[in-house]
Amino acid sequence: MKKKDTAPQQNGVTRNPFPNSKKIYVSGTLHPQIKVAMREIYLSDTKDSITGKLTQNQPVTVYDTSGPYTDLEKEINIHNGLERIREAWIKDRGDVETLNEFTSKYCNQRLNDASLDDLRFNLKHKPKRAVKGKNVSQLHYAKQGIITPEMEYIAIRENQRIDQITEIAKQHKGENFGASIPDKISPEFVRSEVARGRAVIPNNINHPESEPMILGRNFLVKVNANIGNSATTSSIEEEVEKSVWACRWGADTIMDLSTGKNIHETREWIIRNSPVPIGTVPIYQALEKVNGVAEDLTWEIFRDTLIEQAEQGVDYFTIHAGVLLRYVPMTAKRVTGIVSRGGSIMAKWCLAHHKESFLYTHFEDICEILKQYDVAFSLGDGLRPGSIADANDEAQFAELETLGELTKIARKHDVQCFIEGPGHVPMHMIKENMDKQLEHCDEAPFYTLGPLTTDIAPGYDHITSGIGAAMIAWYGCAVLCYVTPKEHLGLPNKNDVREGVITYKLAAHAADLAKGHPGAQHRDNALSKARFEFRWEDQFNLGLDPEKAREFHDETLPAEGAKIAHFCSMCGPKFCSMKISQEVRDFAAENDIVDNEVIAKGFKEKSKEFKEKGSQVYL
Amino acid sequence: MKKKDTAPQQNGVTRNPFPNSKKIYVSGTLHPQIKVAMREIYLSDTKDSITGKLTQNQPVTVYDTSGPYTDLEKEINIHNGLERIREAWIKDRGDVETLNEFTSKYCNQRLNDASLDDLRFNLKHKPKRAVKGKNVSQLHYAKQGIITPEMEYIAIRENQRIDQITEIAKQHKGENFGASIPDKISPEFVRSEVARGRAVIPNNINHPESEPMILGRNFLVKVNANIGNSATTSSIEEEVEKSVWACRWGADTIMDLSTGKNIHETREWIIRNSPVPIGTVPIYQALEKVNGVAEDLTWEIFRDTLIEQAEQGVDYFTIHAGVLLRYVPMTAKRVTGIVSRGGSIMAKWCLAHHKESFLYTHFEDICEILKQYDVAFSLGDGLRPGSIADANDEAQFAELETLGELTKIARKHDVQCFIEGPGHVPMHMIKENMDKQLEHCDEAPFYTLGPLTTDIAPGYDHITSGIGAAMIAWYGCAVLCYVTPKEHLGLPNKNDVREGVITYKLAAHAADLAKGHPGAQHRDNALSKARFEFRWEDQFNLGLDPEKAREFHDETLPAEGAKIAHFCSMCGPKFCSMKISQEVRDFAAENDIVDNEVIAKGFKEKSKEFKEKGSQVYL
Repeated sequence: MKKKDTAPQQNGVTRNPFPNSKKIYVSGTLHPQIKVAMREIYLSDTKDSITGKLTQNQPVTVYDTSGPYTDLEKEINIHNGLERIREAWIKDRGDVETLNEFTSKYCNQRLNDASLDDLRFNLKHKPKRAVKGKNVSQLHYAKQGIITPEMEYIAIRENQRIDQITEIAKQHKGENFGASIPDKISPEFVRSEVARGRAVIPNNINHPESEPMILGRNFLVKVNANIGNSATTSSIEEEVEKSVWACRWGADTIMDLSTGKNIHETREWIIRNSPVPIGTVPIYQALEKVNGVAEDLTWEIFRDTLIEQAEQGVDYFTIHAGVLLRYVPMTAKRVTGIVSRGGSIMAKWCLAHHKESFLYTHFEDICEILKQYDVAFSLGDGLRPGSIADANDEAQFAELETLGELTKIARKHDVQCFIEGPGHVPMHMIKENMDKQLEHCDEAPFYTLGPLTTDIAPGYDHITSGIGAAMIAWYGCAVLCYVTPKEHLGLPNKNDVREGVITYKLAAHAADLAKGHPGAQHRDNALSKARFEFRWEDQFNLGLDPEKAREFHDETLPAEGAKIAHFCSMCGPKFCSMKISQEVRDFAAENDIVDNEVIAKGFKEKSKEFKEKGSQVYL
Repeated sequence: MKKKDTAPQQNGVTRNPFPNSKKIYVSGTLHPQIKVAMREIYLSDTKDSITGKLTQNQPVTVYDTSGPYTDLEKEINIHNGLERIREAWIKDRGDVETLNEFTSKYCNQRLNDASLDDLRFNLKHKPKRAVKGKNVSQLHYAKQGIITPEMEYIAIRENQRIDQITEIAKQHKGENFGASIPDKISPEFVRSEVARGRAVIPNNINHPESEPMILGRNFLVKVNANIGNSATTSSIEEEVEKSVWACRWGADTIMDLSTGKNIHETREWIIRNSPVPIGTVPIYQALEKVNGVAEDLTWEIFRDTLIEQAEQGVDYFTIHAGVLLRYVPMTAKRVTGIVSRGGSIMAKWCLAHHKESFLYTHFEDICEILKQYDVAFSLGDGLRPGSIADANDEAQFAELETLGELTKIARKHDVQCFIEGPGHVPMHMIKENMDKQLEHCDEAPFYTLGPLTTDIAPGYDHITSGIGAAMIAWYGCAVLCYVTPKEHLGLPNKNDVREGVITYKLAAHAADLAKGHPGAQHRDNALSKARFEFRWEDQFNLGLDPEKAREFHDETLPAEGAKIAHFCSMCGPKFCSMKISQEVRDFAAENDIVDNEVIAKGFKEKSKEFKEKGSQVYL
């Protein structure tokens, strides 16, 4: 495939809108001030092949994660950060205070280090924290019956204006394995799902730039993309562009897994410019602070790191609190041991000190911190299997049970919480993961890496895992952590990120279709209709990656005229089944059989004769 | 991704062997003359991280579809064709005669056309046909209790020498939905499955160059790759290289779907140089003979085409005999009508003549032809759904029932037969396809295109369909027809073919794992062990595409030294979980806990104290 990283940019970030699309903003009813961003794709008309009559095709509205970057009417300067759309909503609740300075010691050290001035984002806002004794989590509000602007935003966003589709969307009845998906997502439904702990809205009060989104088995399946370097350092603009790029193709959340230098400063730039929630694994930064010596980690260093990141605006923390000392030996006979970085760090710590992990022993202390900023837990699966051989083993499921216990504690504190899972799991063992998670974690959202369904295809692990991801999302998983083609081999470049995100978007959508999520099939139907009618441009534009579709088409038929041709390079005009299919319909129409209903009837009458004469000659 | 079509070639075809691999040939027992080709991958030693002691890793034997092209000891000249390995086996059965000339009128016309001399393969062999009154199908032999050399070849090939794996392969118990997979494939099992109609060996007596292979739900899942041009004409060498290239990456069969000029001549070159069975859709060529006017097709033209292709050596024919006149109106209200080329051609014919298709009315005549050459039926699904909206509809399942009737007729004639299916089907509706097929077609092998699990990702349809393919293969599908990234958009180039074949190989393998096919997990285990031990070269070489894996690795860490490094570019040395995992083991070993058993025991004792003190502090 050709590399095509060269989209028009501004301030070093990609900003070109999607073709034939317009960003629209839908207002709230309970909260009229909210403006929910969506993308409308405009279509060309359908031309009747006999009469030449034109019929308009309604535009298709799609869920849009790309933020203001694809709206050229918005001015963006990454040195200022994005508009703080949630700022007023947060203030209006009257339960936060603005701090005069950052709480974290480390953070203040960095801020006072003049040698970092050139690197530093020009902070214009002080950090916020809950007023003493308050809990600012969406779960806390939900339990009190409050529908926040965030919740209404999400309800509108999830519906993708299905109520405005005039032609009734033909859609198959899904199989959702006991999920509770309503016909339409109401703000009250969002609230009740959050209150129930079955959905999570990751949105730190210090990340007011983010557009609210939800994770839960009764909502659209979401996709996470990982960014962040390890060895090499890239420029700040490159780091920001990475997250903009991932959101452009559909990442619903971004995890910044940086382990290099200056990760505090890099994270600031990313958060200030990110329209989607940002997750981190704080233990990575804590380990940097002790020069990579796991044994030297302490609760105090970790605690300061949590506060540092919470006041920057990280929306969720992966915390591997389920790696217990007694589970470590369970990994000793594995083919691939412990493959989670966080899990292996904590395992090493536990063994070296011969003590239970401070993440576990201080879990309630962590809850106390998180509730002050509305940071959500992403309870890490430190013992996930790194090979088919290790799938669904004792270590993995023991940890999952512990994550279930921790979920209960988080909920007791009204701290939002979701659970990480899979890794490498063969297809027939995937459902057991989902079923056990639903059971042990009381339907808290599940967030899985893949799973990869075989180990034998390095270079293609976006696909080995895309298969498992689609399946587990169908079974009830809420968020899929993407895998790129470089998995196990190297650092993904921009093309790998795009390939990984699109693979996971299509897997997530396949799951939405299979679950029968309301309106999910509308885009498929519109695209297929465009395909059948040879509206090539519409077919490209309705796809997840219009640029690649167009590029692939043009590789064989580059002439502009080919994009209105009623055939393509695959079969040529004589062998085009779609064209023949249309001729079949036209043939019927010319024989005085006008609409589809009548076609069917007419044909049936004509062929009745056959049936009567026993056309099943071989029966 | 970088294009890398430039592998060393000979006679214009790719011949470089896979890295660290050797082609081996296993002899038969019942039939000592057979030499079953396999590939052995040699591995480096495992070095103990403490003692430095080296332990040998057994080579891994893998199923090999690449034919003699990857064996540099074989001399190949595409102008002479491959060695005719089955020639003697066929002759020895004493039921075939060598014809003095080809039977097909069209074929003889082409042979006598001097203007085609430059294009023509230099035929050295006359066509063969069953002696009058004989049936030379493997099904016919199987029913008489005869184990042919082809059957023993297949038994040896399917086992991949699992009995020589000294370390017991850890493998999960599979879920095979009622399949009857034995622990080891015996020649008698192959015979009985063929006799039962549950497996098919496509191998025309006029394609003795092909290496026997089997399609059936109780065998390894197979992959088909389509080749063939429509609009443009490529050189003969290019056409041969296409099939060599597809087999190199794992195609078990090739369909030549050419619709361009000189398809008779092109096909001859392909068959003479193909180590895998070749399938065609004879109606395409028949349509060329009537200048693309479907209405002008006749049984006589079609019959001559069947004989023409059977005497060239085509191993299976897609025949859309299930498109009945009365089914056509069922497609009138579909979003995407009829999307099978063959299906739409026959629908048009039926409507124009207002008669039942000659493929259906002459079905027994077709059986009479096929049994003389052992051409297998691939009963075409002319009414497969071309969009999610049209999945599992009345038209599709009506045709499937008819294919079930036709299967019975084919079996009555001892003609081998398998069934084509899917297209676009959402995940939750895939199993119904498999279940209905097993029921209506009495477990005849199923051969499906994808299915694509969503319509919204043009440019990524190898993945939308790879998901469905893995699932349907798990449920019991025997052969997967690949889809390339160019599906719906344009003609695949070599990179697309490679991407499509590998995607389908990994999907097929994921299904083998899920079904619990004996020995299937061995390669996964070996690769994962190599991965954990940082044997990078072994990890690449054990993968489906060693070249791409190496290329991806080298993109970030090109130095040769990096390929023995105990970390990679993803996490760097400090954060490598695999490295830490090993340190955890070493730590334990240094504390006098030597082997894994003891590690586990030792750890358990140490952590017992915790448990007793109630380390589940939050319960």
